[in-house]
Amino acid sequence: MLRTRTCGELRLSNVNETVSLCGWVQKSRDLGGMTFIDLRDRYGLTQLVFNMDWDKNLCEQARQLGREFVIQIKGQVIERESKNKNTPTGDVEIKVLELNILNAASTPPFTIEDETDGGDELRMKYRYLDLRRNVVRKNLELRHRLAIETRNYLDQQQFLEVETPVLIKSTPEGARDFVVPSRMNGGQFYALPQSPQTFKQLLMVSGFDRYYQIVKCFRDEDLRADRQPEFTQIDCEMSFVEQEDILNTFEGLVKHLFKAVKGIELAPMARMTYADAMNYYGNDKPDTRFDMKLVDMKTLVSGKNFKVFDEAQTVLAICAKGAAEYTRKQLDELTEWVKRPQIGASGLVYARYNADGSLKSSVDKFYNEEELKRWAQHCGAEQGDLILVLAGAEDKTRKAASELRLEMGSRLGLRDKNTFSCLWVLDFPLLEWNEGDPNLLASLAGRWHAKHHPFTSPKPEDVPLLSSDPGAVRANAYDMVINGVEVGGGSIRIHNRDLQAKLFEILGFSKEEAQKQFGFLMNAFEYGAPPHGGLAFGFDRLCSLFGGADGIRDFIAFPKNNAGRDVMIDAPGEISEEQLNELNLKLLPKA
Amino acid sequence: MLRTRTCGELRLSNVNETVSLCGWVQKSRDLGGMTFIDLRDRYGLTQLVFNMDWDKNLCEQARQLGREFVIQIKGQVIERESKNKNTPTGDVEIKVLELNILNAASTPPFTIEDETDGGDELRMKYRYLDLRRNVVRKNLELRHRLAIETRNYLDQQQFLEVETPVLIKSTPEGARDFVVPSRMNGGQFYALPQSPQTFKQLLMVSGFDRYYQIVKCFRDEDLRADRQPEFTQIDCEMSFVEQEDILNTFEGLVKHLFKAVKGIELAPMARMTYADAMNYYGNDKPDTRFDMKLVDMKTLVSGKNFKVFDEAQTVLAICAKGAAEYTRKQLDELTEWVKRPQIGASGLVYARYNADGSLKSSVDKFYNEEELKRWAQHCGAEQGDLILVLAGAEDKTRKAASELRLEMGSRLGLRDKNTFSCLWVLDFPLLEWNEGDPNLLASLAGRWHAKHHPFTSPKPEDVPLLSSDPGAVRANAYDMVINGVEVGGGSIRIHNRDLQAKLFEILGFSKEEAQKQFGFLMNAFEYGAPPHGGLAFGFDRLCSLFGGADGIRDFIAFPKNNAGRDVMIDAPGEISEEQLNELNLKLLPKA
Repeated sequence: MLRTRTCGELRLSNVNETVSLCGWVQKSRDLGGMTFIDLRDRYGLTQLVFNMDWDKNLCEQARQLGREFVIQIKGQVIERESKNKNTPTGDVEIKVLELNILNAASTPPFTIEDETDGGDELRMKYRYLDLRRNVVRKNLELRHRLAIETRNYLDQQQFLEVETPVLIKSTPEGARDFVVPSRMNGGQFYALPQSPQTFKQLLMVSGFDRYYQIVKCFRDEDLRADRQPEFTQIDCEMSFVEQEDILNTFEGLVKHLFKAVKGIELAPMARMTYADAMNYYGNDKPDTRFDMKLVDMKTLVSGKNFKVFDEAQTVLAICAKGAAEYTRKQLDELTEWVKRPQIGASGLVYARYNADGSLKSSVDKFYNEEELKRWAQHCGAEQGDLILVLAGAEDKTRKAASELRLEMGSRLGLRDKNTFSCLWVLDFPLLEWNEGDPNLLASLAGRWHAKHHPFTSPKPEDVPLLSSDPGAVRANAYDMVINGVEVGGGSIRIHNRDLQAKLFEILGFSKEEAQKQFGFLMNAFEYGAPPHGGLAFGFDRLCSLFGGADGIRDFIAFPKNNAGRDVMIDAPGEISEEQLNELNLKLLPKA
Repeated sequence: MLRTRTCGELRLSNVNETVSLCGWVQKSRDLGGMTFIDLRDRYGLTQLVFNMDWDKNLCEQARQLGREFVIQIKGQVIERESKNKNTPTGDVEIKVLELNILNAASTPPFTIEDETDGGDELRMKYRYLDLRRNVVRKNLELRHRLAIETRNYLDQQQFLEVETPVLIKSTPEGARDFVVPSRMNGGQFYALPQSPQTFKQLLMVSGFDRYYQIVKCFRDEDLRADRQPEFTQIDCEMSFVEQEDILNTFEGLVKHLFKAVKGIELAPMARMTYADAMNYYGNDKPDTRFDMKLVDMKTLVSGKNFKVFDEAQTVLAICAKGAAEYTRKQLDELTEWVKRPQIGASGLVYARYNADGSLKSSVDKFYNEEELKRWAQHCGAEQGDLILVLAGAEDKTRKAASELRLEMGSRLGLRDKNTFSCLWVLDFPLLEWNEGDPNLLASLAGRWHAKHHPFTSPKPEDVPLLSSDPGAVRANAYDMVINGVEVGGGSIRIHNRDLQAKLFEILGFSKEEAQKQFGFLMNAFEYGAPPHGGLAFGFDRLCSLFGGADGIRDFIAFPKNNAGRDVMIDAPGEISEEQLNELNLKLLPKA
């Protein structure tokens, strides 16, 4: 090794040792006859000292070093006169005896500091420099730690990690596939997996009993801020289980991760049905760090000549604790906020339950104080609270109320990133009607779609509804939600050929299509398939949650931008005519 | 859980316990009033007993169970009268009280036994049944174990696992890329990585210091028996190292794996230069479980009027210990063997050093016993040994002699799969001249190619030869060879922009091409790149080596066949016109 020690490990006990260190010049200060350099590596910072009196030549060399130069030094550990208590190596410094420049560095396009002056685009273009920043590197160290702890926990629970193939077959169900033309099978394509779903089920048919994999998956979707075309899942499956067993096993995993990585003992996770989540939070992934449930006001507020409420399909309120002192300006601003197209409400009604016990609303014309008191009672509001009311069509209003609830939670400081509230959401509907989705092929619009995926089993008691009322069938499906983020989800699977065939029929597959696309799985069910189920965690999102961040991008070493491009390597790119010819492909002019 | 115990864990100490088990019917025997069933799961086999006297109805149900039915039973653990010492659960059996058929099974297309009657094609089509066989499942359990041990070892050595992207950019260097058309960037393609090479180097530029990843890689090659289009590497990189540090670190990893997984303490690994390996073994991945070096006979045998030797560029012998008693028939058969096109020798000369001290050769007409004795001396042959001689053009003859050596090693029982001989091969040439390779694009023929890859550093003392004699430049490159299998390889990388640019120039890149393809890496070298190096292990091959197998296919859960097809899911396949249109692609008629 070019070094004997790292820049993070020297302490008072090492004084007088002769050491070699390698690293990057973080900072350099000339103080008269002395030059101080902070040398950085992954493990920390160590202060180097050069002195004109000790070695003029060496000190002059040191003065030439720019930021981010890579150097190797040899020197003696000495005690610092003025110690720096803020850094673990702050008691010592190195009296440098030899200096060797391993590589010079041009001035970086942005500063390599926790708070950088680099904008997003610049950081991504020079991601290799961005990754030098402590804050970003620590995210990836966290990711590594979470992966190791996940594997060791699951290994102890007898799970086997099995690698499933990346070059598989395109299926029309689900989101759009990325495809890979096959040279050896001209005119045919592989697809990249959206998940290893069918393979992990086949492993259960194989008797593997407990499978997991931390695995890359791919979806050719129109990207949103928090979506990547390639993403990583902790993918798991178990045999001979019921839903309860899956919940317990993976609640155990997440508890282990919180304990091992963050030192947090989680409470047992709450559980809620999908119906309750939608009802109380307007959302199938409620943030349960705070209460502020949606309250149905329709009956209470109707018939008072307030047309907006009378004509609305739905009237929903939330009670914002302690917010009665919101100023008119704040309330106006909040009204503008709910009217933004992303939220889509047509207006906002409020009622203040003042500290003095009086009530005052924006609809005093229609509701007297007596009536407002009933509102307060109905919403559980106390003196000092603010009631906010939205009205309109059911779906839109519930969604808007959900957004407003989250916004008020943020504004009232109820969404602390260091508090973790975990929840299982259960009993999802099996199917949903799809009118058309830009991430699906156009030919899939106007059909029943699987809410989770087509391999999810219906609740046995709901099976009769499959023919009569598909939308009412509940699935043995579950999501794990932490702080309003869906971190994982799964289901008990179908393991019976006939039921699986029935599902494909409902999803609009002809018998021939179903056999062509998923015949291998249905055939497998004929050779002794065990009852099984599983789930998958979104690993990128789990990491960002553990890291206390909103986005996933800085938990991925080399992410893509919203156009699916890697701006650092400039991918995707053109390929040669020769490559296209070998693949029997021709490019069409852009549509 | 549908079970309270697995089929592998019950012992005498569990007698009288009431248990639930789930699994597959492995075998069923009717013995008069009793029915015995072997119930199988991943963990083992447990014998179930049904008795007409205990419960006629239940016993009759049990008699209806076919092979591979999935059942759940409840029963009492009882001591067996006739114990089976060959199985861990052989002291007990279960008196069954309840039987529940979880899934029926059709008769499998082949028997689910260690020795199956299923041919290769059938096994692959029904891979989910093939994976039920103990021998195949144990391979994948071994793979899991090796992965876990690899990760924990490297984690302890401060390596961070970092996921690098799968959707990257196509580069003409190296083997053919698989490409992925981008819908959002019409006319452009991603490529799947042949290795994460440039990304891991960028991580070193980022100061990650020690990186690893167990990662899928992809090559669109014409497949041989032991090649898969997708394969897995243990990919590693370190900063501030010299070659010696890499060798020690990864020798440590492999030693750890042998110790932890197989209980074997490996001796320190031998080291050999590429030149010596070619000279003594005719091969850059010699099997060093046995000696039998190639011996240059040219000078010794020339000038005796034996035209074959006189005119040959090269004459090479091996001494097969103890094989003097090979019969004429065996020697004729061996001669036919070397003349096969795969070996390509034109004939085989032999000399027996008989136990009585006499010498007898197939070329007695030209060489008397005195001369044959000199052969023996030169080859280190003793009484009882057989000398085998090949002659012809250098490359062809050395290759044929290498093959013959391995064949004789096998025939003489010197290649025991439970003996492990590890070797570092060092000082590979940096470049090789490529006349044309079916796995490369045609446009790459007739050029210097990087023997390892274009990021490998030349030995500093050989840098001046880069311009004058590129083929003579040795690289800081190394392979780890175990039992004649190249399990890993790597190099110290270039970390200097100018040297990297020089290499691209020698490899035939124009300045513009080099900048377009690898500009991001060369630019990165300008911002403080540390000296770094690394290696990658072929994980599939490492697993098969640990498993004592020749092929890698049964160490991959869902492998592809030699045409790159997954015959189970029938991939690759056609995609819809709609998909093609979205990608701006048109299929051409097959060439």
